[in-house]
Amino acid sequence: MSILAAPKGTRDFYPEEMALRRHIFSSWRRTCRRYGFEEFDAPMFEQLELYTQKSGDEIEKQLYTFTDKGGRDMALRPELTPSLARMVAARGQALKRPVRWYSIPRLFRYEKMQRGRLREFFQLNMDILGIADQTADADLIAAVVGMMTDLGLDSTDFSVLVSSRDLLEQLFRSIGVPAERLGGVYQTLDKRHKVDSETFEAMLGETVGDRDLARRLLRTLHAETLDEAAAEAPEVPAAGRLRELLSLLSAYGMSDYVRFDIGIVRGLAYYTGTVFEVFDKQRSLRAIAGGGRYDRLVSLYGGPDTPAVGFAAGDVVLGELLKDKGVIPEIQPRSTAFVVRVGDDIGRAIEVTQSLRNAGIGAEYSLKSVGIGKQLKQANAARATFVVFVGGEEEKAGQVKLKNMRSGDEQLVAVDNLVRTVTRQL
Amino acid sequence: MSILAAPKGTRDFYPEEMALRRHIFSSWRRTCRRYGFEEFDAPMFEQLELYTQKSGDEIEKQLYTFTDKGGRDMALRPELTPSLARMVAARGQALKRPVRWYSIPRLFRYEKMQRGRLREFFQLNMDILGIADQTADADLIAAVVGMMTDLGLDSTDFSVLVSSRDLLEQLFRSIGVPAERLGGVYQTLDKRHKVDSETFEAMLGETVGDRDLARRLLRTLHAETLDEAAAEAPEVPAAGRLRELLSLLSAYGMSDYVRFDIGIVRGLAYYTGTVFEVFDKQRSLRAIAGGGRYDRLVSLYGGPDTPAVGFAAGDVVLGELLKDKGVIPEIQPRSTAFVVRVGDDIGRAIEVTQSLRNAGIGAEYSLKSVGIGKQLKQANAARATFVVFVGGEEEKAGQVKLKNMRSGDEQLVAVDNLVRTVTRQL
Repeated sequence: MSILAAPKGTRDFYPEEMALRRHIFSSWRRTCRRYGFEEFDAPMFEQLELYTQKSGDEIEKQLYTFTDKGGRDMALRPELTPSLARMVAARGQALKRPVRWYSIPRLFRYEKMQRGRLREFFQLNMDILGIADQTADADLIAAVVGMMTDLGLDSTDFSVLVSSRDLLEQLFRSIGVPAERLGGVYQTLDKRHKVDSETFEAMLGETVGDRDLARRLLRTLHAETLDEAAAEAPEVPAAGRLRELLSLLSAYGMSDYVRFDIGIVRGLAYYTGTVFEVFDKQRSLRAIAGGGRYDRLVSLYGGPDTPAVGFAAGDVVLGELLKDKGVIPEIQPRSTAFVVRVGDDIGRAIEVTQSLRNAGIGAEYSLKSVGIGKQLKQANAARATFVVFVGGEEEKAGQVKLKNMRSGDEQLVAVDNLVRTVTRQL
Repeated sequence: MSILAAPKGTRDFYPEEMALRRHIFSSWRRTCRRYGFEEFDAPMFEQLELYTQKSGDEIEKQLYTFTDKGGRDMALRPELTPSLARMVAARGQALKRPVRWYSIPRLFRYEKMQRGRLREFFQLNMDILGIADQTADADLIAAVVGMMTDLGLDSTDFSVLVSSRDLLEQLFRSIGVPAERLGGVYQTLDKRHKVDSETFEAMLGETVGDRDLARRLLRTLHAETLDEAAAEAPEVPAAGRLRELLSLLSAYGMSDYVRFDIGIVRGLAYYTGTVFEVFDKQRSLRAIAGGGRYDRLVSLYGGPDTPAVGFAAGDVVLGELLKDKGVIPEIQPRSTAFVVRVGDDIGRAIEVTQSLRNAGIGAEYSLKSVGIGKQLKQANAARATFVVFVGGEEEKAGQVKLKNMRSGDEQLVAVDNLVRTVTRQL
């Protein structure tokens, strides 16, 4: 590997790539502020035990682990939720409920790379802790939709698919899946869209170890609506809870975006109720976001019983979708104004540049003594919206020439009015 | 170590701490925009070689190193400049000069902890590449001052102390320090403020190995101004260059902030010309920022010859100074508006909350069905500026009661006017 290359699975963010990252992050922050969440963060690495305690030793395969110089086993964070649960557990009841927190962590997973999956990436995490009611699930799903629409996407671009681990458990139990086989069934279900349907059916048969049962399971999984699913087992109380959630989401104005999908399962040990994932309509990309209810995690770390619901959305898949849909913005100017000196009075160029900067307007001048043509090339490279010519004939009358590079308009402006004139035309 | 604690030398950012971090970061970004810099970033870890190639194997002691699952030796980044130089070298001449880049990297150094020094911290980095002229040094030093004043600090709070590695080298050579002893002298000088003056003199004597020479060196180091220093060796050309820099900085309006200090040396192999550090006036804290010219780094990584000047400012020391000076802002509301329901019509509360959110106003409502008193407590915990009462008597007339929590004023507002009224009072 050349020393000039970024490590495999990581990215260099040159200003063009950084512009997209900043666009996504500021949209995320705006959404979180609108929805009443406040920002937190945790260290970039944690004790290895924080992850193995939650996910078992198996997780270590995916982690960037290291032993620090004090001999402690550490890992770069692969997700933020364990740190969140640790921080909430550490404060116990002193944190006022509900906790409504978000964060934009940088995360690390040593995984095989695929489209939309890197080893170093960012996520938006939003979590509501301390509320067992379905309103929290609804508020959070509304926020996911808000996050997507803020980026310029609408219901023709994406869907939020909702299900419930409670519902699945009750349905599967009611048709005869033994409790000890549930874990295996979830695992198999999570692979449903990664294999063809024949392979999937074979895997399912193997998992439950009973042909008849596998057939009943498949029929259940073909349910297209919650009513169809509930019809298979009318006594299932979780169906009522999920109906309540969907009705709340309709009050939020989210019916066009959200629908029940029995195929949404999510990872294994984590979730305890509602689960959901966001997909592009064509389903050509990996999940854009995913989340659900995890009522037992804070107490797992020794904190008080704390019902919780949260989601994470990754920047990589989302970036691909925004590019596919053509909703990424142009890169902003490096400097709003570029000061060109006509004569060789550098002091005058510095003075005008500083007056703009001090008024909050991005400005620069040529740091090299070069001709006007080369200075204009620099103004162009800085993507400047305005060029200010100083030191010309106009200077004697206390004026400068201001050129608006978007409109091409030129005007003479009294030096004292420069800031005001630029601000008005922005 | 308890699993509930953050690893030693790292920080948990609860919303209160995050508020200060965000305040500093947004001030940093504002300054960079004003001064015409664009943001970039690099991976959080790099090949170990990237750091040892620049600083020798010695640096490894301070690094968080690990071997990844592909057997590659990696290190968490202890500074951003090697990554910057790598990225510039990789693009060669394709990047238009000057490169005016900034970044706010998270960095990691396994060091002994002291006030103002942690193992995980943030920096602002600003760099100008491709300009050999002193204007670049001046523009960058002006930006450091701009960064400090944007945070509410002024010339009674801090100074920028400037010197030059060229000047020091020429001065020391002119009074007879042998070339091969220069490195040792710099190293000793860098410890000047960390030991008492007697120890310092003894160290210096040992470094140069000649009592007379040590005495001449000490006299040189007592120079309080550039003129005094230059008087010791009038033939030194670097003094002229430094004079030019100070004169440029005067054109920038920076004379109150910047002065020559012969004691500023900076680390060893890195710098090639101007060096500077920012200190609080009382000098009660470690350096707030430091930087200088490093003209050989990009070519060290195989890139084209690229003159460069840059600085870094850490968040930890700066945060201490802002607290000492009492210039940290109050934490913002989690939600601008909190919607309280008087009756039990949750649908109405959701509708009003969503109308505020969709208009870009931060809003929430109680996710639990509780009495008005408990809802108001939640509004308080959310630090809401406004409380909107829905479902009361006023509702029948199509109105809601709006309470401004800062002024205590209450008014009845038509539902359709709510967004406008709140926006006007913000």
